[in-house]
Amino acid sequence: MSGYEEDASRRRGADGDVPPPPRVVALGGGHGLYSSLSALRRVTTDVTAVVTVADDGGSSGRLRRELGVLPPGDLRMALAALCGDDEWGSTWTEVVQHRFRSEGELHGHAVGNLLIVALWELLGDSVAGLDWVGQLLGAHGRVLPMSSVPLDIVAEVEGADPARPDEVVTVRGQVACASTRGRVRSISLIPDQPPVPGQVLRAVREADWVVFGPGSWFTSVLPHLLVPDLARALVATSARRVVVLNLSPQRGETDDFAAHTYLEVLAGHAPELGVDVVLADRKGVEDAVRLERVAGGLGAELVLDDLAVADGTPRHDPERLAAAFDRILLG
Amino acid sequence: MSGYEEDASRRRGADGDVPPPPRVVALGGGHGLYSSLSALRRVTTDVTAVVTVADDGGSSGRLRRELGVLPPGDLRMALAALCGDDEWGSTWTEVVQHRFRSEGELHGHAVGNLLIVALWELLGDSVAGLDWVGQLLGAHGRVLPMSSVPLDIVAEVEGADPARPDEVVTVRGQVACASTRGRVRSISLIPDQPPVPGQVLRAVREADWVVFGPGSWFTSVLPHLLVPDLARALVATSARRVVVLNLSPQRGETDDFAAHTYLEVLAGHAPELGVDVVLADRKGVEDAVRLERVAGGLGAELVLDDLAVADGTPRHDPERLAAAFDRILLG
Repeated sequence: MSGYEEDASRRRGADGDVPPPPRVVALGGGHGLYSSLSALRRVTTDVTAVVTVADDGGSSGRLRRELGVLPPGDLRMALAALCGDDEWGSTWTEVVQHRFRSEGELHGHAVGNLLIVALWELLGDSVAGLDWVGQLLGAHGRVLPMSSVPLDIVAEVEGADPARPDEVVTVRGQVACASTRGRVRSISLIPDQPPVPGQVLRAVREADWVVFGPGSWFTSVLPHLLVPDLARALVATSARRVVVLNLSPQRGETDDFAAHTYLEVLAGHAPELGVDVVLADRKGVEDAVRLERVAGGLGAELVLDDLAVADGTPRHDPERLAAAFDRILLG
Repeated sequence: MSGYEEDASRRRGADGDVPPPPRVVALGGGHGLYSSLSALRRVTTDVTAVVTVADDGGSSGRLRRELGVLPPGDLRMALAALCGDDEWGSTWTEVVQHRFRSEGELHGHAVGNLLIVALWELLGDSVAGLDWVGQLLGAHGRVLPMSSVPLDIVAEVEGADPARPDEVVTVRGQVACASTRGRVRSISLIPDQPPVPGQVLRAVREADWVVFGPGSWFTSVLPHLLVPDLARALVATSARRVVVLNLSPQRGETDDFAAHTYLEVLAGHAPELGVDVVLADRKGVEDAVRLERVAGGLGAELVLDDLAVADGTPRHDPERLAAAFDRILLG
């Protein structure tokens, strides 16, 4: 199962007649990463997703507690976003995305979570297990965990109790952080120096572009910057960095965020990180002048574009996001 | 997913320069069917397994109760017996055969059982779901359920209570029947006229050979003869019929069986069934004269051969069983 390594060698060995596709690393988790991958697969054939492994809720949380494994759900979602278009790829993707519904013990488990965990138990290697599922789905890219051990997110939250709005409390766990009624001020990880798979560091080092977001800012986008080895790689890489802002605040986590607040929080958690491009939805930005100024402070050009689906719900449209990526990455 | 149908058409459309492989239908369940399939795949490329769906124990029993599906375990075992030899087939077979071990709700579930059930839920078609898993494993043959609804085995058992050795009681469920301390006299099925997939009836009709056993006699071999539509097809087919006897009695079910007793019980449950060959292990037969006479009464030739593994445990050796099948089916 060293197909990915071979692909890389072949690519480097090519004679350059056809420009190679841009090598893109997309960071995130959950639905936000699903959106960025759904768009990026339309722009390049060389995508690597680096996925948070801090989920402690739902099927993933149960598997993590019962079997002591990485939470597989965000990894499964990322694989599904990259799945093959043919009958084989789409059927197996439906299978891995299928959830059991019952009155019993399997209720709520996603089949792909069980499959990924079984491969991990068999192979003893989280990256190899994900590569096998990627092969099954005919994935257009590779999906890697940001750490080889499960993580816990810890948040400093202000006003979690409405009766004491100025009190700052510590909240542990992704579910608790994402659903707090207070305002998240900062996050950290336990363990605070988790091991990062070598394949992740290599992908970041060799990338042409690194894409941050969209996604739950504190629980899916920022965690990558709190893993010291990964943060160092993200700062040191010669890749250009794009930050894709969310279309709407997320209840709890980022209730009162303006567009520029996302950038300020990002910079607060990773002061050394340079940013080249900030991509935001034209209609989702209330104060474009201020956003441009904050982006400029990070060294970034602001790109405003139409990114949302046409029905008015706050979701990125894969075609529109792909068109924006196309202009940024290839233009 | 009509590959199997296409294969059949191609085969029939061949110009006959190369003799086609014998079309073999193997009936059974559990480890016995695993043995016969492991041998038959060495003899022909055209094997169809028709598998009992009466299991109510273990992972299969739990899935059946929780999700209302066919018990998948015997079907999964049959698919594993036919899996591809390459890295792809053998790795996915390890995955489907993998069982979770924990203190929690997944403990004991085989991954392939969960995968098969997910495909059934998605596709709403038990045969199509098994064909997809067969394709995943690169299976050398097809695996079909003997009925499209789950079955319960009901046994008339004598002496289940040692204190009352002559009492006959009714025992329901495969686990209860297989583990009874009494002697099973006869079995029946609930429902007593279950629907049989058309692909099963067609495979039996078009077969050159039908193989009964080895396996748990009452719970894996005889049930096929108690499904009226399947029994009629097995009686009517122009295929030749081989009965493979067990090497040793099974604790409980067939405690006091001599080799010929298996045949007598088979004939008792299916009086109209002709048998062409009875295959038994040379060393496992105490009274070959009597066995030959009982076989002859069914119209069958008795073939004695060395079928057991060399280490003395009562298991069929796949190579030896294959050699015997080769002589019978191709000779």
